[in-house]
Amino acid sequence: MSQALQDLLPPGHPARGCYGCGADNHDGLRLKSYRDPSGILLCRFEPRPTQTAFPGMTNGGILATLMDCHGVWTAMAARFDDEAIARIGMDDGIFVTRALSVEFLNPSPINALLSAQGRLVEEGRRSLTTEVEVFAGDTLCARGRVVTVRVRKG
Amino acid sequence: MSQALQDLLPPGHPARGCYGCGADNHDGLRLKSYRDPSGILLCRFEPRPTQTAFPGMTNGGILATLMDCHGVWTAMAARFDDEAIARIGMDDGIFVTRALSVEFLNPSPINALLSAQGRLVEEGRRSLTTEVEVFAGDTLCARGRVVTVRVRKG
Repeated sequence: MSQALQDLLPPGHPARGCYGCGADNHDGLRLKSYRDPSGILLCRFEPRPTQTAFPGMTNGGILATLMDCHGVWTAMAARFDDEAIARIGMDDGIFVTRALSVEFLNPSPINALLSAQGRLVEEGRRSLTTEVEVFAGDTLCARGRVVTVRVRKG
Repeated sequence: MSQALQDLLPPGHPARGCYGCGADNHDGLRLKSYRDPSGILLCRFEPRPTQTAFPGMTNGGILATLMDCHGVWTAMAARFDDEAIARIGMDDGIFVTRALSVEFLNPSPINALLSAQGRLVEEGRRSLTTEVEVFAGDTLCARGRVVTVRVRKG
């Protein structure tokens, strides 16, 4: 399997500290997104036992965090190849979330490996919109839409 | 100040374990929502230093978690008075999130006390929709809409 996109970011890059997906944030979820040959971006995530809404169900805020970060990385994956991600400088622009919407369709079990599939669905003049679907096995638990914009420092 | 609504729930109620707002979830955010005489529901929250997106900014997933739980409690507050919350049985229905949308309007500083204001904006046949605005000082950082439905067990 290829390397997780988050792990490609150069050492010291600010996004490596993100609570959702930063490789260097040891308090966070440390989500990992992988390119799939089909063109979608994949993330597998096993919630902690405490990350519940009700007993046995994954918390909606945790699912929203997964949608948010994986949606941003789906935009990143659409615009940058692996080598470009590994060369991103501190002042280069990267994508951030302007808006996020999530539909909770089915309870998402807490003791399952969740699988998130990200795809690019819309390209605007300054924005990329991605869709993220979260499955537990074959069950579609939640669907999200993430509007991202590329932000340059300064 | 009156008691936080989350703390009113009877001991052992499943929602006391919620990762976002459960009083008994010591790994979670333990959000607290208070009725304000103006009719809005208030929640003040100070992110942990690790709950960043980029350095200095609060993570979007954490803000979404705040919107989600406080939005649900805004619906609860609209339908139940304090005494009714304190009497909710294990099998009584409570509100859960069907859909959540968040607009990120301004960076939300990590070292600030964030203030969330929830209000009921729409009543459907089976759903209550609430709006949550998150401020850092006078700056509106994010606005969310939470569609909740009352779910009964069994």
